Amino acid sequence: MRAAVMYGAGDVRVENRPDPKIVQPTDAVVRTLAACVCGSDLWPYRSMPATDAGRPMGHEFLGVVEETGADVTGLKPGDLVVAPFTYSDNTCDYCAKGLPISCRNGGRYGFDGVDGGQGGAVRVPYADGTLVKLPVSADSALLPSLLALSDVMTTGHHGAVTAGVARGDAVLVVGDGAVGLCAVIATKRLGAERIVLAGRHEARTNLGREFGATDVVAERGEEGIARIREVTGGVEKVIEAVGTRQALDTALGAVLDGGTISRLGVPQYEQGPIGPAEFMRNVTLTGGASPARAYIEQLLPDVLDGTMAPGRVFDQTFTLDQAPDAYRAMADRQVLKALIRP
Amino acid sequence: MRAAVMYGAGDVRVENRPDPKIVQPTDAVVRTLAACVCGSDLWPYRSMPATDAGRPMGHEFLGVVEETGADVTGLKPGDLVVAPFTYSDNTCDYCAKGLPISCRNGGRYGFDGVDGGQGGAVRVPYADGTLVKLPVSADSALLPSLLALSDVMTTGHHGAVTAGVARGDAVLVVGDGAVGLCAVIATKRLGAERIVLAGRHEARTNLGREFGATDVVAERGEEGIARIREVTGGVEKVIEAVGTRQALDTALGAVLDGGTISRLGVPQYEQGPIGPAEFMRNVTLTGGASPARAYIEQLLPDVLDGTMAPGRVFDQTFTLDQAPDAYRAMADRQVLKALIRP
Repeated sequence: MRAAVMYGAGDVRVENRPDPKIVQPTDAVVRTLAACVCGSDLWPYRSMPATDAGRPMGHEFLGVVEETGADVTGLKPGDLVVAPFTYSDNTCDYCAKGLPISCRNGGRYGFDGVDGGQGGAVRVPYADGTLVKLPVSADSALLPSLLALSDVMTTGHHGAVTAGVARGDAVLVVGDGAVGLCAVIATKRLGAERIVLAGRHEARTNLGREFGATDVVAERGEEGIARIREVTGGVEKVIEAVGTRQALDTALGAVLDGGTISRLGVPQYEQGPIGPAEFMRNVTLTGGASPARAYIEQLLPDVLDGTMAPGRVFDQTFTLDQAPDAYRAMADRQVLKALIRP
Repeated sequence: MRAAVMYGAGDVRVENRPDPKIVQPTDAVVRTLAACVCGSDLWPYRSMPATDAGRPMGHEFLGVVEETGADVTGLKPGDLVVAPFTYSDNTCDYCAKGLPISCRNGGRYGFDGVDGGQGGAVRVPYADGTLVKLPVSADSALLPSLLALSDVMTTGHHGAVTAGVARGDAVLVVGDGAVGLCAVIATKRLGAERIVLAGRHEARTNLGREFGATDVVAERGEEGIARIREVTGGVEKVIEAVGTRQALDTALGAVLDGGTISRLGVPQYEQGPIGPAEFMRNVTLTGGASPARAYIEQLLPDVLDGTMAPGRVFDQTFTLDQAPDAYRAMADRQVLKALIRP
């Protein structure tokens, strides 16, 4: 099969790799129909040291089950399925409490002998626990929105849930990337009345408005904080969907004392401001990597009936062989989120 | 009047200061009956640069109203009252949402022309908003436990509330100081079934057991974390009642993914570990400075009927003139919490 492999910063190649095969009886092999490039794929794209080994890329995909291991009971060849961005057994204590991202047997695509999602096929461990069957056909127009459930939409939802968004709330979403925009969808879905989107890429913030943002703040840093405070008087709930210290500082500057900041962007820092000043303000820091698998079934009906259309974040489609172009376009911010059709 | 004033690390003096007078019509002057030394008073006692000006000390006190300003309607001379450890107007937006610690007009005792609590009397700003009347006489045996409502007990309660402690929970309390021990009381009060107290001062952990701790872990650092995990399998809820990086690291090591750490000790660090590792684990960091005023009336009945006796944390009584000894004894860990009777 063909697959995208990263060999270092700026160096994504599409090459031939062995077709995946069942290794464990709980595996399934899924032929990929649609995959995409994640904002988090751009961090190694900017900074990964050069390597000869290469790293298979991609952790968001949907496709058709091709083969199942002997112990797989819930799936059969031909099923259309979406994969959450990590695999998980759905039976351990963490899975049982709704945190499959911390699954005791879970792992990441592209590591430990598991294929990446940006390729022709993937061997999915713990297929019964990981994959979610989709009741549509392979040519459904809903595929992009269903693919968004693998990460960006379930991640945005995680932000809204952990920030405690409820009916009538005013919420700030920091970041106009695909996760931030999906957080707008999720926040509106949970009943927020006022949704302030902090972002300065007009095409994206316009989509954010269509998703439900009531206000857009394009200014950054202190100016952005002042503007958000002017517009809202400060907010109780913030979803930080970037991962930079600047985004966290914006969240801290805009949140009211006693408020909550939910982080969705993988932090690009090891240490952060949780000293006496933040302590005195009773700011709660929550969120984290989304337990996507736990949310997919919950959000699926809203995608199927068209209540939400997170697939609109995909603004350009690439073939698998064009994957290097997809990375470049996203890194240059010419493309919001690249859909890849192997 | 006599009052304790700090002039630098290790340098607490008791000296004559002007008797407080009504300045604003919302003030009351309270003659102090009982005060105490706070764990947080020990941080400046260890590190405050020498100064000629001196800083009046103490923020926990109860006493008798001596005089009220023209606008004070809820209090009259002779009323016995307890003061939360900051003053607040009880009318601003933060007070209205139960966060008087962030009161728009609030402030701290010992600053901005307001007396400290370790003295003969205190001018209390926003007396109607700040002070809580106590339905006992000045010679009540309950005074120490009522005094504990000014800070340590309401702070311990804040930890249990923000950690989300509920019936049947397993909770870890890090720190066997007065706040940690009060957190044990609060945690048990909210129905926790298993309460692990991390501390190694036996007299204190024994009191913790009487307050409801089911397990005591005396080991520190990695060994302490291993022991807590061995005893509990990891905990969902942690109350960190120290404020050092080591205590936070213990909390992080012991908490399960998806769990909550509530911080009650004023952080002795500016930056802390909130990087990718903590993000991937979905650990929530909450807590902060207690909105004590918002909790006093809630906890008062339990003190009055003897359900809780947080005053047991006071293990030695000093006269006001002995305040320097009280600081020394607490700093040397010979005394858990010093009660001062002016």
